[in-house]
Amino acid sequence: MVRYDAPLRDYTFLFHEVFQVTDISERLGYEDWDRDTIDMMLEEWGELMRTTWLPTNMDGDKFGCIYENGQVTMPPGFKDAWDLTTAGGWFAAAAKVEHGGMECPLFFRNAMDEFAISANMALSVVSALGLGVYDLLTTHGEAHLIDTYAEKVASGRWCGTMCLTEPHAGTDLGMIRTKAVSLDDGSYSLTGTKMFITSGEHDLSDNIIHMVLAKLPDAPEGSRGISLFLVPKYLPDEDNVNGISCSGIEEKMGLHGSPTCVLNFDASVGWLIGEANSGMSLMFEMMNRERLATGMMGLGLGEVAYQNSLDWCVERRQGRDLRGVKDLHEKADTILVHPDVRRMLLKMKANNEGIRALGTWIGTLLDEMHRGDEESKVHATALIALLTPVIKALGTDLGCETCSLAIQVMGGAGYCSEYGVEQFYRDVRIAPIWEGTNGIQALDLAGRKITQDFGRNLRSLMWPLVEFIEENRDDPAMARYTKPLHQSVRGLQQLTLLMVAEGMGNPHFLAAGATDYCTYFGNTMLAYMWARMARVSLDAKAAGIEDSFYDAKLRLADVFFAEILPDNVGLAAKVQAGHKHLMKFPEASF
Amino acid sequence: MVRYDAPLRDYTFLFHEVFQVTDISERLGYEDWDRDTIDMMLEEWGELMRTTWLPTNMDGDKFGCIYENGQVTMPPGFKDAWDLTTAGGWFAAAAKVEHGGMECPLFFRNAMDEFAISANMALSVVSALGLGVYDLLTTHGEAHLIDTYAEKVASGRWCGTMCLTEPHAGTDLGMIRTKAVSLDDGSYSLTGTKMFITSGEHDLSDNIIHMVLAKLPDAPEGSRGISLFLVPKYLPDEDNVNGISCSGIEEKMGLHGSPTCVLNFDASVGWLIGEANSGMSLMFEMMNRERLATGMMGLGLGEVAYQNSLDWCVERRQGRDLRGVKDLHEKADTILVHPDVRRMLLKMKANNEGIRALGTWIGTLLDEMHRGDEESKVHATALIALLTPVIKALGTDLGCETCSLAIQVMGGAGYCSEYGVEQFYRDVRIAPIWEGTNGIQALDLAGRKITQDFGRNLRSLMWPLVEFIEENRDDPAMARYTKPLHQSVRGLQQLTLLMVAEGMGNPHFLAAGATDYCTYFGNTMLAYMWARMARVSLDAKAAGIEDSFYDAKLRLADVFFAEILPDNVGLAAKVQAGHKHLMKFPEASF
Repeated sequence: MVRYDAPLRDYTFLFHEVFQVTDISERLGYEDWDRDTIDMMLEEWGELMRTTWLPTNMDGDKFGCIYENGQVTMPPGFKDAWDLTTAGGWFAAAAKVEHGGMECPLFFRNAMDEFAISANMALSVVSALGLGVYDLLTTHGEAHLIDTYAEKVASGRWCGTMCLTEPHAGTDLGMIRTKAVSLDDGSYSLTGTKMFITSGEHDLSDNIIHMVLAKLPDAPEGSRGISLFLVPKYLPDEDNVNGISCSGIEEKMGLHGSPTCVLNFDASVGWLIGEANSGMSLMFEMMNRERLATGMMGLGLGEVAYQNSLDWCVERRQGRDLRGVKDLHEKADTILVHPDVRRMLLKMKANNEGIRALGTWIGTLLDEMHRGDEESKVHATALIALLTPVIKALGTDLGCETCSLAIQVMGGAGYCSEYGVEQFYRDVRIAPIWEGTNGIQALDLAGRKITQDFGRNLRSLMWPLVEFIEENRDDPAMARYTKPLHQSVRGLQQLTLLMVAEGMGNPHFLAAGATDYCTYFGNTMLAYMWARMARVSLDAKAAGIEDSFYDAKLRLADVFFAEILPDNVGLAAKVQAGHKHLMKFPEASF
Repeated sequence: MVRYDAPLRDYTFLFHEVFQVTDISERLGYEDWDRDTIDMMLEEWGELMRTTWLPTNMDGDKFGCIYENGQVTMPPGFKDAWDLTTAGGWFAAAAKVEHGGMECPLFFRNAMDEFAISANMALSVVSALGLGVYDLLTTHGEAHLIDTYAEKVASGRWCGTMCLTEPHAGTDLGMIRTKAVSLDDGSYSLTGTKMFITSGEHDLSDNIIHMVLAKLPDAPEGSRGISLFLVPKYLPDEDNVNGISCSGIEEKMGLHGSPTCVLNFDASVGWLIGEANSGMSLMFEMMNRERLATGMMGLGLGEVAYQNSLDWCVERRQGRDLRGVKDLHEKADTILVHPDVRRMLLKMKANNEGIRALGTWIGTLLDEMHRGDEESKVHATALIALLTPVIKALGTDLGCETCSLAIQVMGGAGYCSEYGVEQFYRDVRIAPIWEGTNGIQALDLAGRKITQDFGRNLRSLMWPLVEFIEENRDDPAMARYTKPLHQSVRGLQQLTLLMVAEGMGNPHFLAAGATDYCTYFGNTMLAYMWARMARVSLDAKAAGIEDSFYDAKLRLADVFFAEILPDNVGLAAKVQAGHKHLMKFPEASF
């Protein structure tokens, strides 16, 4: 049996000491979200996840989803866990008050995501999709659609999906074939086949509201000719089926509790969302939150994997401390005495806490983007443009690494199903693939976000970063953090210049280096987060606050700068190596 | 359905062009193993693996091993595949002629291992264990044991196991509790419980011969008090059971076709192998080959994963070449036009071909160690001392990376069971754990092999390496390989000095850096392999041989030096960072 305790202390630190979120929530009109509310709600949510979602997670993996005659039965316990959460009003946390919601800030919703993923990633995905549908619907849907669907989708009583991929069109959505034909009453008739549709069919809710990409008859070629439609499993009022059938679910390596469906639309009735042919840009709008949520999958699974592998290391006794016996009365010391075990554990912990800080920062920026004044909106939009692909790719890559380390410190037990950690290793592996593969994220960063608006995004990022370095220049206690941070920032600037200059002449150069560039970029952002966390911790200690939390945070910052940031040197060399060794390799010799 | 083609061309290159194996086999008295025999046998073995083992591999994963009432039934098709291989005499390839074997060179057996692992890792493990038992038995067993067991174990008609781990004693075998008591007839009575025993019980063979670590009543404490015993499932002649019961098999993340057993020995009759209390050193003797074989697991699975993900990339069409449409008549280009896809595929290919070269080299060194004259024996022994932990750790780490990249290039399909590649990702993950975790390999290298005999091992390695660099100094075509190789070698020397100097005063320093040091070491060995392969390829081209194989090899060498070797800079920095950030982290704050 796995255990999980929500990392509340770390969020108290990030929310109230590093990012001062109550200043943000107050300024942005999240009036009910004062510190007490935030802390209490987060604790309650963590407890709900621990007591109701977590106990179903291993069953989700073991029994999986069952497909029979077009219907999908979710694993034992899932429906109860879902209903309990719906009843508590939790799914509507980020929804508007008029739709029964609590209008929580997005940084808070982001923390909620982390806990949900740790407790049961399969269920958390259903909830994230519901929020995605809700956002699109309420931002771009017509009033009658909002009236019919918004409250039910917000609450979780009706679930949602995103129907993008088709058998021949995944990354390249311009090639989709699903057709939408206009009907007399203003609705549309959709026909086509979608695959890899997460939660496309299940028994958690009475209805499922699909957001479907399709092409109108007169649509332009490629991705500019895609429109977005809302297509419900059951039509409103009539309680009638809508020509949508699920013809199967995929057998997958992990995430067995999440049905991955093939969905057939056969003259299914739907309604246009937003303008005709604007489907791709609407999707991308929604992607900001979804990609952050996907990045948090790496963290959510990394955190629960860390906690459980740590429990093993504290109990397991093998060998002796190399500097002499530690526990004389035992036949062996715990494996926590071994430097290599500590290296693995602390790397996991540093991965988790770094991504948590970055995710929280991005959460606050999403709030600024949605509710801030013009200046902070522009600033936040620029930062989010850059940081979204970074956290999606880096968060999921680090999540995979963390879950792998969790197996490794446990040895054979890590590989055995009984201990539960191997499930996290399998579950997390989808995260670098979906919501746009990490290669696509890297291309988005290097090929679009960097050059957008003549490089304004990057200038918006660099300005506060350089200011932070400047502010801390004269503090000797900060030098161990700001010096490598500064170096990394300078390196990033040089690499960016190289990418832009060479990439202009040859997009292959840019695409060949994009992944390593993206990782370099992400490591630099983590270095910034660690330096900021170190600053706050040093201040707390200087103020005489006695709390070992700050000492541990400072030590972990050391771990980051010693064990993770040094990868950047190699990454830079790989970007500089260019593309020729890749592109000149003859196709026949692969 | 997965496909597999044995990499015969690459072995022809390594065997006959890089390592000149027929010179070795002739000199060492492997008289029947001329070039034609080697090539023909290897082709036949590859074909057998492809046609008989591979088709059972997915069923092995899907149906797994079934445990019922103390008995284990292997997956469908396994017994037939095993019997066919036994009937062909293949398992006895490396056994002595007097035991029905073919006395093949060990570099050949190593190549056999790779193919077997690619085709069906679960079956390959049974075969590897049989060879391990055979080696121990024939080298250290008494004549009556050899007479009874050697031929049958060699042939595969009887299988074998290694029984080391106990519930509380894995890495730290000094703590085992299994007891052996001397009986009047020279045999022993063994009692105890062993766990994680691969193929401890199954229905492939009539008998299973266990090699069991146990303690004699008067044995010294710890690992110096361990003895090795041969304990058969059925006693000879009497065809009688021997008090060994299997009380369960583990549910594991992968390798479902391989039963991982809990075995109880209850006054089971066994015979001492070698001297009393020499069990650990006998085990380590056997480990050289087993650890090489485990390193090859990374390669075997990496190779079959590469082949199948490549097939996907050649067929799958998404997006367009960034420099302009490639296939005008198609709606999209194959994803092989994308630099990032090529980067992933070529990294996989470079990982595989580098480890294959290193494994082949070590295979030839094992032959030299067993059959060479005194000088080459001493030299080979020194090199193997160093290279064994390196190939075990690096080969399995790279295998995990390669299988992960195979999933990534396939996107969602990589994560779905239907395409078969996700199985390799799960199967390969055990390899960094067993036969001594990779952390233990790194400690073995850094803490023992480097300093052994006042550093003689390392001198033995450096001498030919530096000579190779020297020889190629004046060839401008080789500079792109020898320059970074030279740099890496110099870096390795400096890191080694640091490890030894600091490690003398503080073993924590050495242990904290061991894993990164080991990877650095391994990358340097790969650089040496790639430089040697480049040398041979350049010579072939200079000799006017028209074969695109050499061009591809040279391009792939470029990929290694551009995409893999640059990691060394970061690794060195991590070693230099020492241990304090790890050891000072307070236990309560983990």
